[in-house]
Amino acid sequence: MSYSKLLEYSKRVAKEVDKFMLDEVLVGEPENLYQASTHLIRAGGKRLRPTLLILSSRIVGGNEEIAIPAAAAIEILHNFTLVHDDVMDMDEFRRSVPTVHKIWGIPVAIIAGDLLFSKAFEALLKLTDRNVSYDRIVKSAEILAKTASTIAEGQAMDMSFEERTDVTEEEYFKMIYKKTAALFEAATKIGAIIANAPENIVNALAEYGRKIGLAFQIQDDILGIVGEEKKVGKPIGSDIREGKKTLIVIYALKRATQSEREKLLDALGNRSISKEGISGIVELLEKLGAIDYAKEYAIKFSNEALGILDTISTEDAEAKEMLKELAEYVIKRIK
Amino acid sequence: MSYSKLLEYSKRVAKEVDKFMLDEVLVGEPENLYQASTHLIRAGGKRLRPTLLILSSRIVGGNEEIAIPAAAAIEILHNFTLVHDDVMDMDEFRRSVPTVHKIWGIPVAIIAGDLLFSKAFEALLKLTDRNVSYDRIVKSAEILAKTASTIAEGQAMDMSFEERTDVTEEEYFKMIYKKTAALFEAATKIGAIIANAPENIVNALAEYGRKIGLAFQIQDDILGIVGEEKKVGKPIGSDIREGKKTLIVIYALKRATQSEREKLLDALGNRSISKEGISGIVELLEKLGAIDYAKEYAIKFSNEALGILDTISTEDAEAKEMLKELAEYVIKRIK
Repeated sequence: MSYSKLLEYSKRVAKEVDKFMLDEVLVGEPENLYQASTHLIRAGGKRLRPTLLILSSRIVGGNEEIAIPAAAAIEILHNFTLVHDDVMDMDEFRRSVPTVHKIWGIPVAIIAGDLLFSKAFEALLKLTDRNVSYDRIVKSAEILAKTASTIAEGQAMDMSFEERTDVTEEEYFKMIYKKTAALFEAATKIGAIIANAPENIVNALAEYGRKIGLAFQIQDDILGIVGEEKKVGKPIGSDIREGKKTLIVIYALKRATQSEREKLLDALGNRSISKEGISGIVELLEKLGAIDYAKEYAIKFSNEALGILDTISTEDAEAKEMLKELAEYVIKRIK
Repeated sequence: MSYSKLLEYSKRVAKEVDKFMLDEVLVGEPENLYQASTHLIRAGGKRLRPTLLILSSRIVGGNEEIAIPAAAAIEILHNFTLVHDDVMDMDEFRRSVPTVHKIWGIPVAIIAGDLLFSKAFEALLKLTDRNVSYDRIVKSAEILAKTASTIAEGQAMDMSFEERTDVTEEEYFKMIYKKTAALFEAATKIGAIIANAPENIVNALAEYGRKIGLAFQIQDDILGIVGEEKKVGKPIGSDIREGKKTLIVIYALKRATQSEREKLLDALGNRSISKEGISGIVELLEKLGAIDYAKEYAIKFSNEALGILDTISTEDAEAKEMLKELAEYVIKRIK
């Protein structure tokens, strides 16, 4: 399956959403702060979440134009999490550019993230200009707020796992649901709600979004180990350096011999590990079958998402087709 | 004028609002994150902003019960700004307890602040349980979001002023409007809006709130120089150490002789200045009349706020009386 239709459409969405974000929402003073806040947005990104939101509107009979403020809200919220994440993880590159705190310093990066957070709500509330009923706007704002809380909980779990070596798969799945999949879920739900979808369809799309989000995060973890640095836009191996407990690492720790386990534990969280050290760990993870294991899970979630889509009937066949492509894309992407 | 009625009422408000915040909003996992998020709230605080919001509802005929979720939202948003501020300013004490990042570290403090931010919106949106119409909830959410953006802008200005010695009074007033007074204004506006006040009354209360906020911040700057450390709950002189450009400092720099100016500039932003050094600067500021000058401005804003209140007629004389007391309290408080 190809996903050329999806990628082309997401470019169009990016154009519309970026214009809305940069011309109508992320405008103000001091200039310095707004430069810092828009830095990652201007650096590119796939705009997958806004595309997902708009397609979720379309599949239930809504239109692109009405959904733009909500799509922008989701993308801005996503960028807020990236700015603060990079501070917390001390990451220096993202989307092939230096991170916000590397350029403007930690205090400005914290405020820039905070500003994006409030701007996400400002963007969403511009739905009032697009004839969406107040009760559906309130419902959407509730989802956005709860999702932001869920993401914060996920980040805290992710960080606390860095200190532990006994994280279970169950804990991992709960964490990536919160950290990543909840926002995909929110995109599908809000997209459907503002297009007046009935509750059962909102719920089906929510589940589809959740599954794609889980697949997306597992693929992200895989790319963090075996991706091409130039494509991924950040250093390979940073998950190892930071001691992240990805599904790959959890599986490997379970399957490793005593000496392999020691080698792994030495590398995890070792911020001064060499490139060769990372290569050795990547080989070990491959040998233990940990990457294949994670890949199988990503495929499983992608298939489940496709299965859910099959149950939804629509008059917008193109939107449905692109949502199918999206379920494929999240596990086949190389960046 | 005494403000015993106000202080007694704010204790009752604190009880109701704290219960709502801690039992209905700030509940979740991981426990560590929720402990960090509620740390400053549990440490006390005057609950001035929620009290202001509820009184603004009451003066236009609304009631306390309905306003609780909005009052909680304002207080939670306020606490979010404190947590991130303390990280940015590297402050170690607030409300007489160690700051969040001193106990849990910077990454957890960042997430704890982020969580409070989303929880502020979650709290506000619980107005749906209290029979407030959806359009007024949306209006309130818009104010909350815009105010949060304004506060971020104010923080950025405040920080950038630390590097400068030529900050004007005009810039200072713009900055404290954004950093502090905007939230007081938001409290009065939201309080009035959810109680169905007509637009002209909402605007009058907004101006009252803005004036009180300005007076409050100037008094805060004064207490930062001549307050009692035990009452204020944080080290005296930290504004000097951080190089903050308060009205006091701006006025003093303008009035100082060349040698006094040099002494002042040496002290501003000097993080290792001694207690004696701070005492010398306080004496200099007093001698130059800078503290009296700031005090006059605080009194002026308080009087203007009282003048606005006079134009508002109400059936709730007690609420009006307490709002008068509040205008006095913000400039007479010693903590």
